[in-house]
Amino acid sequence: MNEKRFVQLLNNKEYIQLRKELLQLNAIDIAEVLEEIDITVALMLFRMLPKDIAVDVFSYFPRDKQKEIIDSITDKELQYIIDELNFDDMIDLLEEMPANVVKKILLKSNYDERKLINQFLNYPPDSAGSLMTIEYVDLKKEMTVKESLDHIKEIGLTKETVYTCYVTDSNRKLEGLVSLRNLVVSEGDKKIKDIMNEDVIFVNTHDDQEVVADVFKRYGFLALPVVDKENRLTGIITVDDIMEVIDQENTEDFQKMAAMAPSEEKYLETNIFTLAKHRIVWLLVLMISATFTGNIIRRYENVLQSTVLLASFIPMLMDTGGNSGSQSSTLVIRGLALGEIKLRDVGKVIWKEFRISIIVGLVLGFTNFLRIYYLEKVNFHIALTVSITLVVTVIISKVIGGILPILAKKMKIDPAIMAGPLITTIVDALSLFVYFYIASSILSI
Amino acid sequence: MNEKRFVQLLNNKEYIQLRKELLQLNAIDIAEVLEEIDITVALMLFRMLPKDIAVDVFSYFPRDKQKEIIDSITDKELQYIIDELNFDDMIDLLEEMPANVVKKILLKSNYDERKLINQFLNYPPDSAGSLMTIEYVDLKKEMTVKESLDHIKEIGLTKETVYTCYVTDSNRKLEGLVSLRNLVVSEGDKKIKDIMNEDVIFVNTHDDQEVVADVFKRYGFLALPVVDKENRLTGIITVDDIMEVIDQENTEDFQKMAAMAPSEEKYLETNIFTLAKHRIVWLLVLMISATFTGNIIRRYENVLQSTVLLASFIPMLMDTGGNSGSQSSTLVIRGLALGEIKLRDVGKVIWKEFRISIIVGLVLGFTNFLRIYYLEKVNFHIALTVSITLVVTVIISKVIGGILPILAKKMKIDPAIMAGPLITTIVDALSLFVYFYIASSILSI
Repeated sequence: MNEKRFVQLLNNKEYIQLRKELLQLNAIDIAEVLEEIDITVALMLFRMLPKDIAVDVFSYFPRDKQKEIIDSITDKELQYIIDELNFDDMIDLLEEMPANVVKKILLKSNYDERKLINQFLNYPPDSAGSLMTIEYVDLKKEMTVKESLDHIKEIGLTKETVYTCYVTDSNRKLEGLVSLRNLVVSEGDKKIKDIMNEDVIFVNTHDDQEVVADVFKRYGFLALPVVDKENRLTGIITVDDIMEVIDQENTEDFQKMAAMAPSEEKYLETNIFTLAKHRIVWLLVLMISATFTGNIIRRYENVLQSTVLLASFIPMLMDTGGNSGSQSSTLVIRGLALGEIKLRDVGKVIWKEFRISIIVGLVLGFTNFLRIYYLEKVNFHIALTVSITLVVTVIISKVIGGILPILAKKMKIDPAIMAGPLITTIVDALSLFVYFYIASSILSI
Repeated sequence: MNEKRFVQLLNNKEYIQLRKELLQLNAIDIAEVLEEIDITVALMLFRMLPKDIAVDVFSYFPRDKQKEIIDSITDKELQYIIDELNFDDMIDLLEEMPANVVKKILLKSNYDERKLINQFLNYPPDSAGSLMTIEYVDLKKEMTVKESLDHIKEIGLTKETVYTCYVTDSNRKLEGLVSLRNLVVSEGDKKIKDIMNEDVIFVNTHDDQEVVADVFKRYGFLALPVVDKENRLTGIITVDDIMEVIDQENTEDFQKMAAMAPSEEKYLETNIFTLAKHRIVWLLVLMISATFTGNIIRRYENVLQSTVLLASFIPMLMDTGGNSGSQSSTLVIRGLALGEIKLRDVGKVIWKEFRISIIVGLVLGFTNFLRIYYLEKVNFHIALTVSITLVVTVIISKVIGGILPILAKKMKIDPAIMAGPLITTIVDALSLFVYFYIASSILSI
């Protein structure tokens, strides 16, 4: 996509040529171009697009742009967009539009549509129901392959996918599925019931999107059927929508692991009060938890008073402890999220972290001793105190970093909370305690 | 999948019934069952599977299991697996097998295959070339829709996907693509050239897998063609393989952000020396960087000496600073990774973080003052010193946490490095400096 070229055409007002060149792009790319330019011109270009492409482009606009467009097009144009928009895109749109826009849209739909829309709007956010679309291909098991292909030929362009077709009985109960590949390679007079796969993997409307994403990742499906409590097929979820979910779930983990409330809103589009709100709670909790650390230091004030130099190693000890613990907890949290580590592996993880922490602790402790004793010329006993504390801190941090996420999962708490920030606060207190204990012994204070 | 049931059948040696029940599962589920049981029995059950299913199951085994199987089956059985394994799975297999196994496999393939295998083994790891498969459907633009469908009917089952078909000229140059959906809804006598899409989006063999994943996410494709330098079609990548890549790329970011060398190996399958090696370098770098912090404390030793109480707030100030900075850097790193934040947004990010940090800083500073002045009965001037430092620290941390990832990206360094651990080390030094500076002023030491 050549941005300069478009700007040039825009400046010269060569809108016809611009339209022609836009049409060679994918809908998402057209949307991006229109987003970047002046709204009046964008709106004009948008209305110059062929209707079917306009609907696709519309579905890629951010919410505020969609709202502007809805507000400025004719009712007839709006009607067209509503009719042609994929059902799941329309639901997404309705979920985020202000009430007056929703009303305007609902007025354009008939009774059955309105009922269906209301049903979809009631699925919990981030559930399979809120992700699914109703535009799937429905076959019956008595149909032949040829009849099925003729059916797909007729309705194929209006469906979200035609590559997996679902076989249901007269009560909409899911009986099997058949892939278009299978239809295309089979003889035309074969019955669907003879080629369909009856061991169908499905999800329920109220399953969390994380569960849905895991099924997609495990089996590599292109689409997944969603059934209601009575096992009736209510919709399907396609793989392209799941890639967004995977990114969303990862973003949530990143946010939780950095001690923030998870949010799906984009950073640049979120206002500062919302962002501040997401951050303050955990910062407050962790700040107040640090009281313990302060208390330990105050308890050993006499040690510090007699050897103020000890204070200068506190940041290094605490940071190294925090970093060591974060490394372990991050690997375990990630392993749990990807299903590579199971709850029953807790023993393996502890044993592994313990051995790793001894290697890492000794290397760090030894390097530290060499550095502060030989380079910084620190007193031998203090250098020893600091280095032994370092080794012990690394061991404690890594073992705790390994255990806590698994423990959290066992207690049905999200393991992602047991990441760097929380581990650091816990490890800080422990390492200070160890530090002063060793100092009082070695330095006989 | 009912594990208890399988164990019971195993114990009763009802292998025939067990085989029957296994065959109702998906290949990946069969592989999981066989992985969990005794290798001798697993091998026996594996060899009892129908050949085509055995190949699928084989492709889901971890490398060590695959090696054990290769070592213990007959040459004829190996030959069958080699012939039937998807080409990309075979390349993955060869990349990780020991030399003697690779030799054994290469001996079973003919000259052309060996040449192709060698070509594929030479693509850089994590490149589009190393991900792709050669099993795509190739059409010519003079073919009719009916001829194409007949062709797919014949060869469809041997291809990785039939849902996107590629149109090439006699020199293998990519001319267009046509979806199976489009073929199925078109009239049989239409020519491919009349229905094909000529604006094909493709990647190059040497493009990084991250680029490939971004294209899939952007356009929601099911498959993507890969071309060589001369624009000849050399393979395709399918969406199921990309979901693994997305997880891999996220795992790498998690690892880098926790100050570890990224690795694709699974935690439980990696030995402790490798894990220790991945962790030590960054811990050493950060530990030695903490020298600065120590120096600052030593420089202000007289301040601490006169008011040892000040030392007890150092951990709280440093942790809060580190956490505040991590929050900002995590959101910005994630925004950059998902393409939601661009380099040109640096000004917006700084302005946003600055305003957020003032809100967050004031709330934390105020709470802290109330807590330590009224609850802990700390001297007014010290409480003021600590609270002002807290506000300044939060502001500095958040702005730095917002800038550094963008700066890194500008300098072509991976932004993920500018996460919690590094930010913490930088912020520690700055916050201590601010602390002692304010303390000397307010307490007139």
